[in-house]
Amino acid sequence: VSSAQTLNRPIWLNSASGYVQVIDQRRLPHKLVIADLKTVDDTIHAIQTMYVRGAPLIGVTGAYGVYLAALTAPASDAADHLEAACAKLKAARPTAINLAWAVDRVSALVQTAADWPAKIALAREEAGRIAEEEVANCRSIGQHGLALIKPLAAQKQGPVNILTHCNAGWLACVEYGTATAPIYAAAAAGLDVHVWVDETRPLNQGSRLTAWELGQADVPHTIVTDNAGGHLMQHGQVDMVIVGTDRTTHTGDVANKIGTYLKALAAHDNDVPFYVALPSSTFDWALTDGLAQIPIEERDPDEVRLVAGLQDAVEREVLVPPATSRAANYAFDVTPARLVTGFITERGVCAATPEGVAGLFPEKIKS
Amino acid sequence: VSSAQTLNRPIWLNSASGYVQVIDQRRLPHKLVIADLKTVDDTIHAIQTMYVRGAPLIGVTGAYGVYLAALTAPASDAADHLEAACAKLKAARPTAINLAWAVDRVSALVQTAADWPAKIALAREEAGRIAEEEVANCRSIGQHGLALIKPLAAQKQGPVNILTHCNAGWLACVEYGTATAPIYAAAAAGLDVHVWVDETRPLNQGSRLTAWELGQADVPHTIVTDNAGGHLMQHGQVDMVIVGTDRTTHTGDVANKIGTYLKALAAHDNDVPFYVALPSSTFDWALTDGLAQIPIEERDPDEVRLVAGLQDAVEREVLVPPATSRAANYAFDVTPARLVTGFITERGVCAATPEGVAGLFPEKIKS
Repeated sequence: VSSAQTLNRPIWLNSASGYVQVIDQRRLPHKLVIADLKTVDDTIHAIQTMYVRGAPLIGVTGAYGVYLAALTAPASDAADHLEAACAKLKAARPTAINLAWAVDRVSALVQTAADWPAKIALAREEAGRIAEEEVANCRSIGQHGLALIKPLAAQKQGPVNILTHCNAGWLACVEYGTATAPIYAAAAAGLDVHVWVDETRPLNQGSRLTAWELGQADVPHTIVTDNAGGHLMQHGQVDMVIVGTDRTTHTGDVANKIGTYLKALAAHDNDVPFYVALPSSTFDWALTDGLAQIPIEERDPDEVRLVAGLQDAVEREVLVPPATSRAANYAFDVTPARLVTGFITERGVCAATPEGVAGLFPEKIKS
Repeated sequence: VSSAQTLNRPIWLNSASGYVQVIDQRRLPHKLVIADLKTVDDTIHAIQTMYVRGAPLIGVTGAYGVYLAALTAPASDAADHLEAACAKLKAARPTAINLAWAVDRVSALVQTAADWPAKIALAREEAGRIAEEEVANCRSIGQHGLALIKPLAAQKQGPVNILTHCNAGWLACVEYGTATAPIYAAAAAGLDVHVWVDETRPLNQGSRLTAWELGQADVPHTIVTDNAGGHLMQHGQVDMVIVGTDRTTHTGDVANKIGTYLKALAAHDNDVPFYVALPSSTFDWALTDGLAQIPIEERDPDEVRLVAGLQDAVEREVLVPPATSRAANYAFDVTPARLVTGFITERGVCAATPEGVAGLFPEKIKS
């Protein structure tokens, strides 16, 4: 760990080695481990086994994967190698749209280069440009979200209680986060905020990652089971919900970590505002029915059966259910647009409707 | 473990010793450990630390606690000792109503005995009678629930998929269970049933206990995270939900394990029947507004922060979140009557309304 960057970014280019480095997020919060990505296969492995996760970060990692594929391509059939690598990268995880978006963007640009060293340089630069754009997007999301929190803070005594699910923090992005950006902005503005952190089974990205991030930033927070949010909302303990998303249709349907739909139902039943924070790179401009059309990844059932944590300073995985019981592991669900109060994007807040999204991003809509 | 009873009952009187024995449910599924309850303090400890849990079983355990209090009362101030013991027993856990109901029933009867040996005998017999009544109730619940499953089985190819939350099986009762009784009855009747088992954080009663029970009975089942039920319902993978309850108002509001409300919302949103199975001992005949009036126990946050399981054949508890992050542990929530399709009781199925409940139990309603 050579750079101060490592404490607020989960990915960076090591300019000395030319390789990419990422935080191995499987090891947090108990160990801060940095992993080298030297090849496209390293990159795919890191995406599939979730060293890196979160829609914007998967996109940036995929972009750097194109660079690594170009960097390590054999001279004999470099172009074929690069094309195959891009296809493999895009297939590494099916739900987050940022992956295909970023890989396509970098690989299209690379086509324009005159020679192979230029392709390598263009890919590296474009991956870096995507990373910086996501940083700028998240910073803007924070400011637009802050404008939603301020009136809540003005209306009440005590903290504004914000519930979030999974980790849509800087670990999932590059800096600031999506769902956490308004929270960090509110804390920086001196507002009294408190975060209910859903633990987010099966991989506990809430209790492992969001809690760690918020703790590092001294933001008050309390971990609750995924089961608790409805009860909290029934008792007036949640002022707003902010979550991230892995893919959102331009018609307003939101794919996000499994269980998001249940929190959206509870928010709707209790008149709690339910916001989704996302950069434009996470919109799917083609699909129109999230429930029918967004592919939902099914992952290894052992992620449900085994729980990782620390005992006596040793990282361990324990088996919870009987060894003979089956488990299933659906990684995402789709929250229909009707349950979403609004989207917080880099261009502002809009309704979760085709018209709302088109109003902010008119150039994306094919007429 | 001396008796075949131990494989389908979680509590029994050891007639040789005169003491009560229970399965220590904290150790399942990895170890089947039997604990002796010799005093009322043993009993309270077993209830509070959840050697025993589940509304009907807490009631039966409380009833036996009165017996143990009588059995071990000091001769000098036996009556005061018994009265204080009953008050302590009733306060051991606040949400399940069966505890107060059973303790009051046994202690009232004991008043009628002529001498102390008669009090001890009456308490022992009455506790046993309550246990047998709960067995009969659960058997009836199974038959009435079976009548709801049969038409679902007739309508479809493949298994009837039933989702349940927490453990309302024989481990939570005395035999058969409440929510599981219809499932066991359907399996016994040769119907093709498959159970989605919510793991039920924080204590994982679903993945530890319900999965173990169903596995012992060879009932097909799949463990899912508590987050997954909404997704399953959106995709037609759940034909009905059956849960138990710790306390249900006679007006229809259902206190049950935290997270039940979220599943009820999802069932309602997807037109999936949502049933609550309960013996009449779990109805609260006094309260009229579950959300406002039923006390919700808040338990040790370490139940959220630590997860118990098996590694290398050793039972361990691992810490999941950062050591410095706070957690909160609300044990129950209240599902409002409007989300409940019906109650499955020992007298039949009724609507989750004051009229529905009064129709089955007219003698309980104070006019």
